[in-house]
This record gives sequence, structure tokens and C-alpha cells, in this order.
Amino acid sequence: MTPQERQYGLYPGSFDTPTNGHLNIIRRASRLFPRLCVAVANNSAKSPLLTVEERVLLLRQITEDIRNVSITAFEGLTVAYARRNGMTAIVRGLRAVTDFEYELQMALTNQQLAPDIETVYFAPALETSFMSSSTVREILHLGGDISPFVPPQVEAFLREKISKGDLHV
Amino acid sequence: MTPQERQYGLYPGSFDTPTNGHLNIIRRASRLFPRLCVAVANNSAKSPLLTVEERVLLLRQITEDIRNVSITAFEGLTVAYARRNGMTAIVRGLRAVTDFEYELQMALTNQQLAPDIETVYFAPALETSFMSSSTVREILHLGGDISPFVPPQVEAFLREKISKGDLHV
Amino acid sequence: MTPQERQYGLYPGSFDTPTNGHLNIIRRASRLFPRLCVAVANNSAKSPLLTVEERVLLLRQITEDIRNVSITAFEGLTVAYARRNGMTAIVRGLRAVTDFEYELQMALTNQQLAPDIETVYFAPALETSFMSSSTVREILHLGGDISPFVPPQVEAFLREKISKGDLHV
Amino acid sequence: MTPQERQYGLYPGSFDTPTNGHLNIIRRASRLFPRLCVAVANNSAKSPLLTVEERVLLLRQITEDIRNVSITAFEGLTVAYARRNGMTAIVRGLRAVTDFEYELQMALTNQQLAPDIETVYFAPALETSFMSSSTVREILHLGGDISPFVPPQVEAFLREKISKGDLHV
Amino acid sequence: MTPQERQYGLYPGSFDTPTNGHLNIIRRASRLFPRLCVAVANNSAKSPLLTVEERVLLLRQITEDIRNVSITAFEGLTVAYARRNGMTAIVRGLRAVTDFEYELQMALTNQQLAPDIETVYFAPALETSFMSSSTVREILHLGGDISPFVPPQVEAFLREKISKGDLHV
Amino acid sequence: MTPQERQYGLYPGSFDTPTNGHLNIIRRASRLFPRLCVAVANNSAKSPLLTVEERVLLLRQITEDIRNVSITAFEGLTVAYARRNGMTAIVRGLRAVTDFEYELQMALTNQQLAPDIETVYFAPALETSFMSSSTVREILHLGGDISPFVPPQVEAFLREKISKGDLHV
Repeated sequence: MTPQERQYGLYPGSFDTPTNGHLNIIRRASRLFPRLCVAVANNSAKSPLLTVEERVLLLRQITEDIRNVSITAFEGLTVAYARRNGMTAIVRGLRAVTDFEYELQMALTNQQLAPDIETVYFAPALETSFMSSSTVREILHLGGDISPFVPPQVEAFLREKISKGDLHV
Repeated sequence: MTPQERQYGLYPGSFDTPTNGHLNIIRRASRLFPRLCVAVANNSAKSPLLTVEERVLLLRQITEDIRNVSITAFEGLTVAYARRNGMTAIVRGLRAVTDFEYELQMALTNQQLAPDIETVYFAPALETSFMSSSTVREILHLGGDISPFVPPQVEAFLREKISKGDLHV
Repeated sequence: MTPQERQYGLYPGSFDTPTNGHLNIIRRASRLFPRLCVAVANNSAKSPLLTVEERVLLLRQITEDIRNVSITAFEGLTVAYARRNGMTAIVRGLRAVTDFEYELQMALTNQQLAPDIETVYFAPALETSFMSSSTVREILHLGGDISPFVPPQVEAFLREKISKGDLHV
Repeated sequence: MTPQERQYGLYPGSFDTPTNGHLNIIRRASRLFPRLCVAVANNSAKSPLLTVEERVLLLRQITEDIRNVSITAFEGLTVAYARRNGMTAIVRGLRAVTDFEYELQMALTNQQLAPDIETVYFAPALETSFMSSSTVREILHLGGDISPFVPPQVEAFLREKISKGDLHV
Repeated sequence: MTPQERQYGLYPGSFDTPTNGHLNIIRRASRLFPRLCVAVANNSAKSPLLTVEERVLLLRQITEDIRNVSITAFEGLTVAYARRNGMTAIVRGLRAVTDFEYELQMALTNQQLAPDIETVYFAPALETSFMSSSTVREILHLGGDISPFVPPQVEAFLREKISKGDLHV
Repeated sequence: MTPQERQYGLYPGSFDTPTNGHLNIIRRASRLFPRLCVAVANNSAKSPLLTVEERVLLLRQITEDIRNVSITAFEGLTVAYARRNGMTAIVRGLRAVTDFEYELQMALTNQQLAPDIETVYFAPALETSFMSSSTVREILHLGGDISPFVPPQVEAFLREKISKGDLHV
């Protein structure tokens, strides 16, 4: 097996909600990996803004022009999911120092659990370097305008959900 | 051009001296990229321990079992070298928070200078997470044993150079 | 309009409870701005120790000798409140690295939402550099003495509330 | 009183669950202090995985070969507990930058509350530098293998508790 | 004296070379302070790219449209210079965590030396958040294009100096 | 051998110049260790303000009331010096995040070189938390008053040296 054959990337996360920052990482990672899977962690312990199904749907909409990307949901350990599906590298975006520390701890833990699975990081694009799902949720909660931070499809979806009274932010 | 065709990685650095940490990153990056170039920055402004030629030689020795890796030297801006040679991504290893800040500043600067060239980071392996060339040089300067930190070829080379009186650490 | 006319500062926060660190920032910011508004964020999602009204009351008591400071409460986005009230700059205190990262992310987000509103930071005074409301609440919860960390009026208020059984720390 | 007579160390923490990192710190601190007390903070506000009694029991099992270590539980402020029991120094392990900031804030707060009680820190051992109780709890929650991160007695205890349906991770 | 009368801001620095980041801070600080002095530190111990006179000249050119800003040079301690000239606050820009730490150490030192002089910080604008004089000097040294990072006047000056062989980068 | 018998602490450093922060750490470490050696690193590669002999002399003067402390100079690796002299633990003071990272890297390197030698850290006292030898040297260089930062003996020594024209700061 040659190097290029074996690389199947996994970009795991909560994606609650997907932001322009996530989309930026997906687009760039899709150029590094022949195949990239974006996987929504179904962590029932958290109280999400969007259901896992909604997040999968929105990620599919915003990535429909990127042909080598697939969207899915998963449960359990990220490295276990990666191994079961033949994924050889985990992709993560980095923004700030606290991000980096958490990511480093995760990477070293995952090296113990699955030494064969690599973790690679992308620096943020300047224009999305300060964006996070939690900031978007907070702006939404405080009645602000989230359009500079999320793809149009995500904004439209949230706007409609709010107008129906379905979203309790 | 398919994604996998275009990926040619560049791992730039001073490599003065090459450490086990560098070798670990080279080995892992060589599995992510179909072709990987390790390039020694010929920055004449610094007073190096090893000449650029010696560093290229040592890197070739310690990577001779990795078939898709080539070693070279370069001058000038890293992104300019990458573009001239058709390299599409820069590889960097991350260890500490101060590393990360410097790397982030470089990545954002490089995005301005060459938006088409990606930067990807590797987390350190646990066993090399604390190693740096400067620590190795300091231990050497203070008369300590560098064998836990560098490949055997590097240690042998430095030991012989010291015994000949050629190395002023 | 001259620069000095247009500056009306806003110092927003939770202030649950007000600490000597908050008072230090208010005092110093009141010398920089012709007018300073200290505004308690009425974020109903959190379970506060003190009500918003109590926090406004205590902030008024501890700042009654500073003539150009007013105390109020607000809801919604900080930049929206600032704009509605003609405030031109947001004041924040900085203590540690994690403070700084969060503040930087907020400032960059606010630049997107309201480019006309500036954010300025004050370094902590040495003697209050380690104080936070959450530490004060934890010490109170564990039965410790909070008098080195809060103004006397705040301590007296909390002590009376505890003695009445009104405070469930 | 000579220096060596008065040193009685206190290693406080949640220990929910005890990890190989905790055991490493205990072992090293037991060589620095003539007597060392490992004390489980009984902070009723948190929803722990293990009861305080279970944590005390497990810490006793994993330290039974270290003769100058005692295990106990405590409530209230750490410095108050230390003073009541004649302990003269608090021991803490450090891992990452955010750890360090929190620890520094605590140390400066404790200096105010109890200037006679010292705080000393241990660097992590390389092999436990990335381990935390919260990571272990998360791996357990996600169905992963915790054996690389905890002493065998802790793993056996958790495994049996899960098999009995007593542990809701 | 009213608050607005006494505020005379000092923005000290090396400014070797002035960048778009410096200009951004000057512009924003000139709106906060009735009068702002930008002062080039004449620290003879460093080997600068530009002379102090050249830096003063360039700063004057790039700020000539800002009426309440003056440019000067100074020697000795910043707080001593501020006090001699009736300046009441020092302005600094913040970018990264290591910036912040150094700035915090300086601010606390200056509080000891001159408690009457305040220090206030500005967050970076997003588009200049990664720029530093040292990066510009390094790009110049490596033969790269500095036009995205410095005002046009600075670029023209450096280009001419290089073409005359006057600049040894 | 009992734990308390074997503890002989080593506090290594440059101490150029000794500050109130160093004295604070010495005083506190002398209460933790039965014997404490303060050792000036004779690193000929740096251009110091004070000679090693002057630093040893000044450290002796400022610690003459602490009976279990000895002052010395050393060359080579710290862990090699510790082992030759039967010292079992290295003492270091911590101030900021960058300190911490460097210290962590050193501790992990020293664990490889000498696993039997422990490293313990002290948090700074609040009042010396921002002091460093390099800041003191910079203030001296700029003609400022260093009396808030160094013991009186150090200030008197430096003042006399300057008046004789022996100190080129």
C-alpha cells in the first residue's frame, strides 16, 4: 500500500452549530486527504442547540460542492470510530492556546489508545480565527446577528427555527 | 488533478542538530504525503553548530530507510521555495504554547504571502515532546550525554567532531 | 466633535460578587473616561449568587465617591447596549492568559458586530491580580474569610445575608 | 524546631478517579516530606463518579507500600484543613499552562488566607504528563480502555462497578 | 482638573520598522486620548534596521492626517519620560500570549516605579493581529514582499534604501 | 535512610543580579529542605553584569541570617553537579507561563539525564511575582531606581560599582 492510498481523514467534532471556521477547515482538509469524513459526535451528555441529525444535514448542505467529503454521526471514542472505518488520520483545527493544550492532551491520549492513527492540525484562516460555536450560540442567545460567523444555510435554518419557536437559545 | 496527486509536503527547519523529535515528525509526515521534502534553511545570519552541508548529510543518513523523503537545503522565504518547487503544504511540529504562538504567527503571515500553500502541524510524540535542538546544544555545551535525544548517527558524528577538536560548543 | 467629547466608557461584567479587583478597575477607568458606566449583565441563563439588583446596589455603594461613574443593568449583547447608549469604548480588566484569550476572542467578535466601538484593557493592580468573583464565591462556599478580597460593604452584605439564611452558597 | 521536623505535606485533590499521574506525584512527594497526607476534598457541590469513601479506599490500596503516606477526606478550605492538622506545605502536580494559571491563582489566594503555609509543585513525569481524571472519566463514558491511565486496582474496581450496573458514566 | 483635561497618552515602542499594526493602534488611541504622543525608544544597545531619526520621520509621514498625534524620540525609562512630559497613560498593543506576559510584567514594574501613570492596552485589529516588526524585518531579510504588512510610505522608503545599498538586512 | 535524611536541595540559577524574588525563594526553600545549596551557574557563554564571584558574595550577604543555606558556584550540567554533591532535589521559582514551559522542558530533560533527582517548584510571592534579573538590568541600564526590586546590599554594591565607573550597564 502506498502512502497516498491509505490516507482517509476524519474531522470529528460537535459542530453545534457549524461555523465558517469549520467550513474553512473542511475545505482545506479536503485538499490534503483523498477522502475526508466529517463526523458529528453524538455525545448525549451535553444539551445541544441542534440535534445530531440537524447538524449532519447542515454540514451536508454547506459541503455539497466538495466531492471527496462525506458527513456522518458517530458515538463512542473517536479513535475507535476511526479504526473501525479505516480512517488513518484525525483532523483538528487550532485557534488559541487553550485549544492547543486540550488538543495536545487529546492527541497524546489517543497515541496511547491507537498508536496507528495520526492527528494533524490546521491553523485557522485569519478571517475565522476568532470564531467558535459557543460564541455563535451566545450571540444568538443575546439576540445578535450571527451572519458574519456562519454559512448562509446555517443562518437561514436557525432563523426559521427561531421564528417557529422551535429553538430555545 | 486529484487531491492525492498534488500533495507534496515541505518540512523546513534549522535542524541544528537533528533530534529524535525531528525524525519522529519526518517519519509521520512521510505517511501523510506521497512525497516529502525536508529542507534545511540556510540562514547565514545565525551562527550554527553544524554547517548546512553537515545537517543535510545527517538528515540523509537518519532517513535513508524512508523511500519518499528527500533532503535539501534552501535560502530565502519558505513559501517562495515551496512555490518554486511545486510543494503544496508546509509541515511543522508543535511542542509547547510558545511554539504554537510563533507557528500561528508564521502561518498567518504565510497565508498573506502565499494563500495557495497550506500549513499542517503534528503533535509531538510523547517520548520526544520535550526535545529541542537548543536543549541538545546546551547539554553538549555543558558536557552532558545527548544520546537519549538524538539518533545514533548524529551522536557519533558529533562525538567524532568533538574528539577532533572541530566542534566548539 | 473632539476626541474628548465622544468618549463614554462602558465596563460590563457579571460582578457576582463585586471584588476589590473590580473596584480597582472602576477607579482607574474613571480617570481615563469623562463618563464611565458600570453595567451588570443580566444573563438569566446563569444561577447567580446575588440578584442583578443586589449587584447594582453594591456597586453603587462602593463607588459612591467617584462622581463620573454610573451603575446600571443590561440585557442582550454588550455592543448593542453600548451603541444604544452612545458609549464608545468597552473597558475590561485582564489578569491571566486564559482571561486574555477569551477577551481577545470577544474583542475580535465585537469588531465584526460593531466596528465603531473600541475595547481597551487595564492590567491588574498587583494586589488584586489574583482575585476573581468565582474564587470569592468558592471561599464563601467553603466557609473561609473573604475580607481580603472584597470591599467592606460587600462583605457586610454577604455576612448579613448568610446570617439570615438567605444565601445558599 | 528544625526544618525537617516541621514539614508535614498535604496533597489535596478530588481524585475522581485516582490516576497513574496522582500515584506518581504521591510517590515523589513521599520522598520529599517526612509525612504526607493525601486528602480527598469532599465538595458536595460536584456530582462525582466515585463517592469520597470509594476514593479514599482506592487511594489507600494503591499507596499501601508507601509507609509515610496517610489517606483521608476533608471539607472546607484546604488551608484551614492544613492548619488544623499541623501541615506546613501543600503539594500540587502541574501539567499544562491552564493548570499552572489556576494553581498560581490558588497559591496567591492561599498566601493571603494563610501566609504560613507553603505550596510546592511537582512537574509531571513524562509518561503521565497528559493524564487527568476528567479524561479518564470521558474515556470510560465513551466505552474505551482506561488501563493505560489508572492503577490496576482502580481499573478492577471500576470494571466491577460497571458490571454490577452501579456506575453511571 | 477634570478627567478629560489630564489625559495625555504616550505610545512608546521601537517601531523598527513601523507596521500597519502600529498605525492601527495609533489611529484608535488618538480617538481615546485628547493628545497622543508616539515616542521612539532610543535604545542604543540594539542594532536597529532604521535609525531613530528615520523611524520618527516615517511615523510622521504615516500619521500626518491625525491632528492630535505628535511623534518624538526618547531615552531612558518610559515612565520617567511620561512623567517629565505630563503624560498620564501609556498605550500598548497586545497580540499574543507572550506579548501579554511581557506587557503585564512591564505594567506591574511600572506601577512600582510610577504609580500615578496608567497603562492601557488595545486588542489588535483582526487584519493586523499577526504582524510584528521582527517578522517584517525577517521577510525583508529573506527577500520577500513586505507590502501587505507596512504602510506604503514605509515600503517606498525601505525599497529606495535597499536600491541605494544603504540597508543591510 | 529516612526521607528527611536524604533531602539536600539545590537552587541553581544565574542570579545576575540577585533580586528580592530570589531571596524570597531561598527563604522559603530553606524551610522545606534540611540543607539548601544556592549555586551560581558559571556559564561563560553569556556576558554577565556581575562576575560569578560577585554574585556568590552578594548571595552570601543577603542570606547570612539563614543558617542552613550555603552559596557556591558550579559549571556544567545542573543534574551532574547535584549528583556529585549528593543533592536530591532541584528547586526552581515559577512566575509566568513562559517560565513554566521552559522549566517543564528542563524538568523532563533532567528526568531523562538523572531520574533520581527531583525538581520542585515554588509559586512566586505576590510582591515579587513580576521581578526578574533581566528587568532589573534593564532598569539599571535606563537609569531607573532598582531599590524596589533588589535587597539593599545588592543595590549598594551596584551603586558603588557604577560610581567607580566599573559597571557598564
